Amino acid sequence: MFVGAGITDVRLPYPVNPSNAPRLLALMDRATISIIVDHPLVVRGWSDAMQRAGRTLDVLVKVDVGFHRCGIDPGAGALGFIQAVASLPGLRLRGLLSHAGHAYHAASEDELASIARQEAETLADLRSRAAASGIALGEISVGATPTLRFSAGQAGITELRPGNYVYFDRTQVALTAASLDDCALTVLATVVSKHPGRIILDCGSKTLTNDLARGISKAAGYGAVLAGDTDGRDAAREIDETLTIERLSEEHATVHVTGETRLEPGDRVRVLPNHSCVVSNMVDVVRLVDGDEVIDTLPVAARGRIT
Amino acid sequence: MFVGAGITDVRLPYPVNPSNAPRLLALMDRATISIIVDHPLVVRGWSDAMQRAGRTLDVLVKVDVGFHRCGIDPGAGALGFIQAVASLPGLRLRGLLSHAGHAYHAASEDELASIARQEAETLADLRSRAAASGIALGEISVGATPTLRFSAGQAGITELRPGNYVYFDRTQVALTAASLDDCALTVLATVVSKHPGRIILDCGSKTLTNDLARGISKAAGYGAVLAGDTDGRDAAREIDETLTIERLSEEHATVHVTGETRLEPGDRVRVLPNHSCVVSNMVDVVRLVDGDEVIDTLPVAARGRIT
Repeated sequence: MFVGAGITDVRLPYPVNPSNAPRLLALMDRATISIIVDHPLVVRGWSDAMQRAGRTLDVLVKVDVGFHRCGIDPGAGALGFIQAVASLPGLRLRGLLSHAGHAYHAASEDELASIARQEAETLADLRSRAAASGIALGEISVGATPTLRFSAGQAGITELRPGNYVYFDRTQVALTAASLDDCALTVLATVVSKHPGRIILDCGSKTLTNDLARGISKAAGYGAVLAGDTDGRDAAREIDETLTIERLSEEHATVHVTGETRLEPGDRVRVLPNHSCVVSNMVDVVRLVDGDEVIDTLPVAARGRIT
Repeated sequence: MFVGAGITDVRLPYPVNPSNAPRLLALMDRATISIIVDHPLVVRGWSDAMQRAGRTLDVLVKVDVGFHRCGIDPGAGALGFIQAVASLPGLRLRGLLSHAGHAYHAASEDELASIARQEAETLADLRSRAAASGIALGEISVGATPTLRFSAGQAGITELRPGNYVYFDRTQVALTAASLDDCALTVLATVVSKHPGRIILDCGSKTLTNDLARGISKAAGYGAVLAGDTDGRDAAREIDETLTIERLSEEHATVHVTGETRLEPGDRVRVLPNHSCVVSNMVDVVRLVDGDEVIDTLPVAARGRIT
């Protein structure tokens, strides 16, 4: 999908199983593809598949820098794994890659800075150990939007992959990684009912998703309603603190009203989602707007393709 | 979308704003459409729109039976609202409709039965009061999958709308509304990595969603991994209790392993999702399978259409 959009260098930063070799080989005819590896069985499978195809696949070793999802432990066994990858035919070891996902649970900016520093040090140390054993690791790739501004100042890093950066969202604001003005994706919703103490919006979990906001400052509810005109067009970059999206059904948001609201059925509001990545994944198209004007409509080409 | 699938009688059980009148009028040319109303402004808007178009729209009054989302309060003011709807031109009042969504939070089967009974009594009482004022309400429509089997035995109900019934899911099992054998939708996932104490699956929040299981019995995590063969084909209708999907990233599930698991990268498993409605909404197609065989591939025509 990325390839179709004219992008010719694609790094897949999550483990792909060698059972997908036919699909990956087809993509390799259209773009420069690299994948990550973090498990001996998977590395051998890719080496075998590439040898059979007479091709060479770029790989990066994923390193667990504290999120404890994917990635090899950077401790004692790490160099052995890197050496094994470097020695296998059909693979070209390009470097190291990490994702500091635990930064989403940081309690302060200092902790974010510390995570970014430790990540860079862990990778630099591993690169040094590999170099001492004769293996050059050209690429040191990190990627997590909350730590981006701290990672940018670290020595030795060759690539930043801040996936949420294109839109930002309420979680990044809560993590002090973005301001409200930086947030580029909002959901335009209509008030469809009003009852004592609550209004109902026509955006439910099939639009906003049930992802909660993470971050240093607590942000309750399933998104933030922006203040502004009641036609949703001139929404200020300011949160209407009297409105809390306290519950999502699939097609509705139940919004608790503190005090009174002037909003009535038919009025429109803009909602800043907690997590923009999963929200853009819910729709077939996104609209690019400049004030009132729709500048362009872009397809979300890669969504829904899980088969 | 429903209309395109050959269904000619469509009830929209959530409030639709009159600003959507042009779209609804277009659908009315292709099917019998009914909507719900629960707010004076909305009712007047639809009456005006239908008068302008020279059409008549079927409406049901939504009644709040305890979920406190949409619906009129069934108390003192309810009859006045029903009379107002019945008197407006361009609308044909068909009956009452409710959704006992609070049943998802029931603590026992007795509570489920009680919710279904109270719902039926509330609607029957309101119908009687309307009848006494000269308004016949032919349709009494209830819909919530957890209370289905109790609602089915209530007098006076003319329609059941159990939306989750087609697939069921882990939440319905936790609510004793379904057995594991009843559940028709699973996600086929591949083990993509394995580390001490955890395996990683290639189904994340963009597949399983972050919806938690609700229900009488507590069901931890973001879905249940079914026991069975390591190729995912002959999954038993039994949960592998040693595996807990403790965290979802967008493309990964981090699964905590209690003790040991024989699963290795490349193995496949079936995951029973917490909430099937939102999972089917994530994909463009669902596969109908009979054992190993794919019988058919069905498009999920209505998903992604929010614009």
